[in-house]
Amino acid sequence: MIAEILSTGDEIRTGGVADTNSAYIARLLQDAGIFVARHNCIGDDINDIAAIIKEISERADIVIATGGLGPTEDDITAEAVAKAANVKLALNITAYKRIEEFLKQLGKKKITPLNAKQALLPQNSILINNFTGTASGFLLKINKAVFFFLPGVPFEMKGMMPQVIEYIQKELSASRRFNKTINIKTLGVPESSANEALKDFSKEFKNIKLGFRAVLPEIHVKLYGSGDDKETIERELKKGEQFVIKRLGEYVFSTDGKSIEETIAEILIKKRASLSIAESCTGGLIASRLTDVAGSSEYFLFSGVTYANDSKIKVLKVSPATIEKYGAVSVETVQEMAAGAKRISGADYAIAVSGIAGPSGGTKEKPVGTVCIGIADLKTVTGKMYNFPFKERIMNKEIFAAAALWLLLKRIRDV
Amino acid sequence: MIAEILSTGDEIRTGGVADTNSAYIARLLQDAGIFVARHNCIGDDINDIAAIIKEISERADIVIATGGLGPTEDDITAEAVAKAANVKLALNITAYKRIEEFLKQLGKKKITPLNAKQALLPQNSILINNFTGTASGFLLKINKAVFFFLPGVPFEMKGMMPQVIEYIQKELSASRRFNKTINIKTLGVPESSANEALKDFSKEFKNIKLGFRAVLPEIHVKLYGSGDDKETIERELKKGEQFVIKRLGEYVFSTDGKSIEETIAEILIKKRASLSIAESCTGGLIASRLTDVAGSSEYFLFSGVTYANDSKIKVLKVSPATIEKYGAVSVETVQEMAAGAKRISGADYAIAVSGIAGPSGGTKEKPVGTVCIGIADLKTVTGKMYNFPFKERIMNKEIFAAAALWLLLKRIRDV
Repeated sequence: MIAEILSTGDEIRTGGVADTNSAYIARLLQDAGIFVARHNCIGDDINDIAAIIKEISERADIVIATGGLGPTEDDITAEAVAKAANVKLALNITAYKRIEEFLKQLGKKKITPLNAKQALLPQNSILINNFTGTASGFLLKINKAVFFFLPGVPFEMKGMMPQVIEYIQKELSASRRFNKTINIKTLGVPESSANEALKDFSKEFKNIKLGFRAVLPEIHVKLYGSGDDKETIERELKKGEQFVIKRLGEYVFSTDGKSIEETIAEILIKKRASLSIAESCTGGLIASRLTDVAGSSEYFLFSGVTYANDSKIKVLKVSPATIEKYGAVSVETVQEMAAGAKRISGADYAIAVSGIAGPSGGTKEKPVGTVCIGIADLKTVTGKMYNFPFKERIMNKEIFAAAALWLLLKRIRDV
Repeated sequence: MIAEILSTGDEIRTGGVADTNSAYIARLLQDAGIFVARHNCIGDDINDIAAIIKEISERADIVIATGGLGPTEDDITAEAVAKAANVKLALNITAYKRIEEFLKQLGKKKITPLNAKQALLPQNSILINNFTGTASGFLLKINKAVFFFLPGVPFEMKGMMPQVIEYIQKELSASRRFNKTINIKTLGVPESSANEALKDFSKEFKNIKLGFRAVLPEIHVKLYGSGDDKETIERELKKGEQFVIKRLGEYVFSTDGKSIEETIAEILIKKRASLSIAESCTGGLIASRLTDVAGSSEYFLFSGVTYANDSKIKVLKVSPATIEKYGAVSVETVQEMAAGAKRISGADYAIAVSGIAGPSGGTKEKPVGTVCIGIADLKTVTGKMYNFPFKERIMNKEIFAAAALWLLLKRIRDV
């Protein structure tokens, strides 16, 4: 079964935005054991879209297409599909009612003609539910290919992809081949070192393809299992997972796809322990990542984003003398920040971060990329200084946050 | 003159990395007045690459291809091109000497067979200089199209693109059509309403194509200007921009591509005013967005991420009676949170957000998607309640944060 991806839109065609949708879709298809042969991109022109749909319909078995399903005039995918498939557009009542309902929740009493247009689908197409917007997704067989048309808004597309994958696996999967992927997430080991540590993996595991993906600063080790017998593959994957853990164990933070913040939530909730944070250079990013996880209110109490030194002193009661003597970016200051966050919120654990994200603020002794992380646990307060080689502000915020979460995870596992 | 872009490589095909090269190349071609019709992506398979090259060679006039010119075994583009063009590979002496020179500078005395392979180019091709790596770029006419083959390493590709553009303009006599895009960013207006408000735009502006892009919750209105005379296009774009501002002015937050947090930073720094925040459901996201902008320490003092009610009381001094009587998600509570954040940090402005991001925590009166936003300015403290129709936690955090930043922007513009 061969898949292709098609993204439509002048914004992507002209380079106004990079096509991240196609990468996302390719990963999901790949993980579901479906071979992606090509990506294609074309602009908002009805004849061009119809022409490329016809071309691909002779080549691929499955096509995931994104874009052009919005309410505006340049959203013309449904029309182009109708043209390519030589059918008419017709009002889909289910889609119409869903749009009406969605707009009602937004406080709009009447459906406008532009939104009503979003319920006009090519005849014979099957509606794909969109729970987060007015664009209607749909699937339609054209020549030998089944096309899935989804909105280009990444959030909406991502919400609908599980339905697409499920449909493909249930309705279209001729092959009974069993595919399963294990995703082992690590932090703190470079990709080349991870590769070196696992260089004899492929000799031992014949049915598993080993892959590495850098989702900086994390390195994900992927085990792609594939074969005719489910039990054999699952047994081999289990062994493969243990092999990777044996070699890279100290860097592994999850083997079930969970993020580091999900892993932390799980442990703290199990321990019935609470956490507070004090952030300077990360500016709230650590708290925001932790609270992306549903249920984080069970353990997360407070983060003091004390960007100004004065806030560190007023809110967290850091001693002005400490900042004066050692600087705001120092092991001494972050220890006092962590202790302060713990004390004022009554938390069991606290982490504190202060660093130089850049572009300015670096010195010879503490260049851009320097970060201090403090951890207060049930018994002690400790602190460490790190230096990362990146000179870019957003990247540094990400790296500093990841380093702090990683130290926290190691601590709550131990204490 | 019609251009296409081709990127090769399994990493892009399988979604391991998004194809940012194609977006970059498309922008440069667009700016040079060359119409980009399609992007294509294919994996590291010699037959697949040769096949797609043949296809495109019948369609386009110019093709920029990236990837597969490295030293390793899976770098097979030159071979695939030779196959598609039905020519042999031959040693290019200039390329060989340049590689030798480049390696010498790196301290390597001898050229390895793998690097020597990088000097083997399809017969009749013309070398494109690479000053930053060992990969040789080259151009070759195949059927009606002139192909430019460049390395996939973005840094190397970017260094070579000026030569490509110059060659196209000098040797292939591309039209000097002038292209310019204006990006007007709005918040608070749905895409369909924005389109409705601008429905007569196209009648008035013949040389400007109007486009809409949802970067939820923002809607970006794009004016694509294109024509032979630079001055005419720029004059018309200026008028078009004023037209959009007249119709959508209350929702427009930038016309120069700036983000809402950059716009806020600009205004507050100009006013020499400071800001603090109190966040509950957004969990630090607002502070994190604001501190993504370099220089935010000039105005941003503090955010109290008071996730637990107890933290709202202890840190921000919200009255327990207020939370008891009105609830944590109430106009009364966010007003006290804003006042508290302002008071303890000594800021000029403060915003506070408390809401129900979901998936749980909703009630009939305050369902998931409910958010209260408080603003304290130099004189007053006000608060508002909103209800958004989204049921997804991360999306709600984003929407709540955007709504708070939008209210803040309106307030600091006025007061």
